[in-house]
Amino acid sequence: MITRMSELFLRTLRDDPADAEVASHKLLIRAGYVRPVGPGLYSWLPLGLKVLRKIEAIIREEMNAIGGQEILFPALLPRAPYETTARWTEYGDTLFRLQDRRDNDYLLGPTHEEMFTLTVKGEYSSYKDFPLILFQIQNKYRDEARPRAGILRGREFLMKDSYSFDIDDDGLKNAYHAHREAYQRIFARLAVRYVIVSAVSGAMGGSASEEFLAESEVGEDTYVRCVESGYAANVEAVITAVPESIPFEGLPEATVYETGNTPTIATLVDWANSAELGRTVTAADTLKNVLMKVRAPGGDWELLAIGVPGDREVDEKRLGAALEPAEFAMIDDADFAKYPFLKKGYIGPKGLLANGVRYLVDPRVVDGTAWITGADEIGKHVVDLVAGRDFVADGTIEAAEVREGDPSPDGAGPLVSARGIEIGHVFQLGRKYADAFSADVLGEDGKPVRLTMGSYGIGVSRMVAVIAEQQHDELGLRWPSAVSPFDVHVVIANKDPEARAGATELAADLDRLGVDVLLDDRTASPGVKFKDAELLGVPWIVVVGRGWADGVVELRDRFSGDKRDVAAASATEEILAAIR
Amino acid sequence: MITRMSELFLRTLRDDPADAEVASHKLLIRAGYVRPVGPGLYSWLPLGLKVLRKIEAIIREEMNAIGGQEILFPALLPRAPYETTARWTEYGDTLFRLQDRRDNDYLLGPTHEEMFTLTVKGEYSSYKDFPLILFQIQNKYRDEARPRAGILRGREFLMKDSYSFDIDDDGLKNAYHAHREAYQRIFARLAVRYVIVSAVSGAMGGSASEEFLAESEVGEDTYVRCVESGYAANVEAVITAVPESIPFEGLPEATVYETGNTPTIATLVDWANSAELGRTVTAADTLKNVLMKVRAPGGDWELLAIGVPGDREVDEKRLGAALEPAEFAMIDDADFAKYPFLKKGYIGPKGLLANGVRYLVDPRVVDGTAWITGADEIGKHVVDLVAGRDFVADGTIEAAEVREGDPSPDGAGPLVSARGIEIGHVFQLGRKYADAFSADVLGEDGKPVRLTMGSYGIGVSRMVAVIAEQQHDELGLRWPSAVSPFDVHVVIANKDPEARAGATELAADLDRLGVDVLLDDRTASPGVKFKDAELLGVPWIVVVGRGWADGVVELRDRFSGDKRDVAAASATEEILAAIR
Repeated sequence: MITRMSELFLRTLRDDPADAEVASHKLLIRAGYVRPVGPGLYSWLPLGLKVLRKIEAIIREEMNAIGGQEILFPALLPRAPYETTARWTEYGDTLFRLQDRRDNDYLLGPTHEEMFTLTVKGEYSSYKDFPLILFQIQNKYRDEARPRAGILRGREFLMKDSYSFDIDDDGLKNAYHAHREAYQRIFARLAVRYVIVSAVSGAMGGSASEEFLAESEVGEDTYVRCVESGYAANVEAVITAVPESIPFEGLPEATVYETGNTPTIATLVDWANSAELGRTVTAADTLKNVLMKVRAPGGDWELLAIGVPGDREVDEKRLGAALEPAEFAMIDDADFAKYPFLKKGYIGPKGLLANGVRYLVDPRVVDGTAWITGADEIGKHVVDLVAGRDFVADGTIEAAEVREGDPSPDGAGPLVSARGIEIGHVFQLGRKYADAFSADVLGEDGKPVRLTMGSYGIGVSRMVAVIAEQQHDELGLRWPSAVSPFDVHVVIANKDPEARAGATELAADLDRLGVDVLLDDRTASPGVKFKDAELLGVPWIVVVGRGWADGVVELRDRFSGDKRDVAAASATEEILAAIR
Repeated sequence: MITRMSELFLRTLRDDPADAEVASHKLLIRAGYVRPVGPGLYSWLPLGLKVLRKIEAIIREEMNAIGGQEILFPALLPRAPYETTARWTEYGDTLFRLQDRRDNDYLLGPTHEEMFTLTVKGEYSSYKDFPLILFQIQNKYRDEARPRAGILRGREFLMKDSYSFDIDDDGLKNAYHAHREAYQRIFARLAVRYVIVSAVSGAMGGSASEEFLAESEVGEDTYVRCVESGYAANVEAVITAVPESIPFEGLPEATVYETGNTPTIATLVDWANSAELGRTVTAADTLKNVLMKVRAPGGDWELLAIGVPGDREVDEKRLGAALEPAEFAMIDDADFAKYPFLKKGYIGPKGLLANGVRYLVDPRVVDGTAWITGADEIGKHVVDLVAGRDFVADGTIEAAEVREGDPSPDGAGPLVSARGIEIGHVFQLGRKYADAFSADVLGEDGKPVRLTMGSYGIGVSRMVAVIAEQQHDELGLRWPSAVSPFDVHVVIANKDPEARAGATELAADLDRLGVDVLLDDRTASPGVKFKDAELLGVPWIVVVGRGWADGVVELRDRFSGDKRDVAAASATEEILAAIR
């Protein structure tokens, strides 16, 4: 096909949009790929839509290749199924809710676990019908608190979500690995640089949930990896490397000291180093007890204390992931006033446990570690309070911040940290939704079997921004061939009617060979046209310019910047050889 | 491609769903093409989605062929643009409205005139940029009062909507005709039987708005046509053939009679025929005055009286179309009580006009026609009240019912009536939206030119039901090749492993030739498989059955029902010849 720029619905912009912060957002707007309609809402103009559809087609192909069957649910969904799974409330403000003319409640689907589970339960009844993988490519809706970076985090966005249904754990594992491999093929075809990171720690098992993060400085996700072993995890999922516990024998007694006005870790460390304890104390020797309240879905607020080494902050993202689905809030002075045993700045394990406050500690607080911590009286701290001997916490929690240089949990070396954009997620859901809807089928032995499920997502519209983000340069966008809106951008940069006719002829030849051509046939100056070609980002640019008189056209590689003259007479073959 | 029924996510149903009334709805559910999710909300299972995508692809091709450029807006839209055009309120209960977490108002787009106008205004500024045709294929949302007949009238439905932008009326006419012809090509490719009918009467000109109606007994639209002239119009758009006016000379005087208890047309006609008026009276000689209240958008309710010949009812659809965008309601006893001059059953033109009630009459009430009608006193009517002599109405209105046998407005003969389903609409919008948003561009003379627009829609998801409705037979669905989910349905109806292997081989051969094959490799009985094949509606069925031993397979034409044996050895070629 030949698309003439004189007819294409496109206007490029010279200036960056005022509210755009990241490069992909700026460039996709400037190059006329998308336009804002409202916060987190974008329209796709012709070039953007072409890229989006190419990405969608690649994802569809790879999903079909693993036996996925495509179906399509409404985006507008009744409340009842989401009530059954409690997600109607758990989603909080992120869910778009609305009512119809009869005041019945509806929502705009954020993901479709409920609908898929109900549909499979409705159609299938025997173990013989499985394994089954269903998927859809559909607009999803999430009322993000901070929609940002253009289509990188929109409120209406295109997503591929698939769900696997199996009668046993082996089946689930197969489906999970089939998806994992399909995702690797998809991201390779899209030429995306990415890492696969563990997305949940502990309870569910290491491989039950992994995220595909595109490497990007502007990503919202922080992950760490160990260069030596290849271990990689989302910060929420990092498991702390636990030191060996220490025998109690020979450890000094716990001693309470008057420490004066020492409500902070810094003041406490200063005191310790001036108190002639016979050692140098750092913040890592102190145990900081952070008070908060926690509420399970539908439950009441309850106190929770978390003990972490004094040199580390509690990371709210890790804390949130560890407590999910419960929500948490830091406690305020009014809360402190309600519990007079809480001496702010001097809270210790013993007071907490004696008063029945749930107390979880960082995994580094192993038996035999000795801590300087609060003694539950204003102006007093205790030194050499030994875990396992002087107090026994209610459990451990992965809530302390992860730092570069922390040891990898596999013991292979230090962790380094980087930022990424979530582009895919594979997740062994297990029986959560099947339990909610009693999704059973008849097993081989005639007895009911509960289905087990996986859920797998790829952000389709987000991928447009991710590719733009990873591939752009200072001149504009650069599209890998697989997703470029056109194969070749032919620029007429010569007013001579013969050159113009020759360029049109060249475009027609390429078209006949199945090449998708963008032909810049506008009356604008060569300078304007070159700038636009660089901005639009088609990977191959052919310039029919001054050289035409000498029988040459110029072939430019948008990625490397290389330019070379090719004979006009053999241009079609040369271009074809270059682009394929 | 080969799809094995043993793996296909499909369960056919033996019984019709309880709530389904029309054949397409029953069959699409029974054959596992769609499933209900809520009122007017359906999920598309694999077979349904394949048909939907094929229809979508044909529409896209024909839109591209007339130079349409595809873009895509969000379905979730901010309120402001729809406030500007007043459609935020005019749409009434049909619009799905919602709020985001910041309490800002949003809607789910019912159509996108506002967004297209704003986008073109935002990008383009010169007459040189036109003509322009933009389109999208997107989910639309309308909170129908009575969603019905499955996907025939859903609340979330897929629509192709396009908009043309031109700087003058000639340009608009060209775009309109290009669309009209593209629509004819689309519906021909989809093998739909349809008529094109005028959709608005009078004011906007005969060709400014036309509907494409698929012929169907279950259609919600009634249209009439004149077999002699080819005139065809939606009932809302029928223009009444107006009789010639009659000179007043020699017409009898109007005379008021005591008519007793005669509040209905029937009792009035009985009285007239017993009153020795010297003629036989029918309901058509009486003038019935119907009272209602009308409210313009944002305005107050006002009284409106409509005078129609007593043998005709007021058709609420025609009335609605005539009054749009105002809404109307019949008046109740409480309203009557407010206006004591309204004597129910005895209301006449003179009393209405004397009391300042807006009074519109049927176009048949031409000057010189004499009527028996109310005399504005209980128990009294007036005979020979002559229009134009004894009263002058405020105007005419097309609100009386249209009946078979009514004369065609072009005088060519009587009208016959039929029912249809709206599948397309082409509409010369003119400058309504350009005016609302001041969408001007610089003209050739350097002065601003206001854009003129057309809007053009096709119901994409509805087409699936329309084709099913027109093509099905008593055994099940029947798909035209262009939209069938598969090209050939190969049924293995022989347990012999050799026959089974042969059928699989045949499917593989067809696949290699680019034929999309559904292979029924299930263990079910031949009878079950044949019934399913007839229900699913793939146009060609190949049965590998008893004849296999004799070297033949059976080729069935699902449309004609014809069956013939073909040699297994040359089956591939024979099938290919038949289906192409």
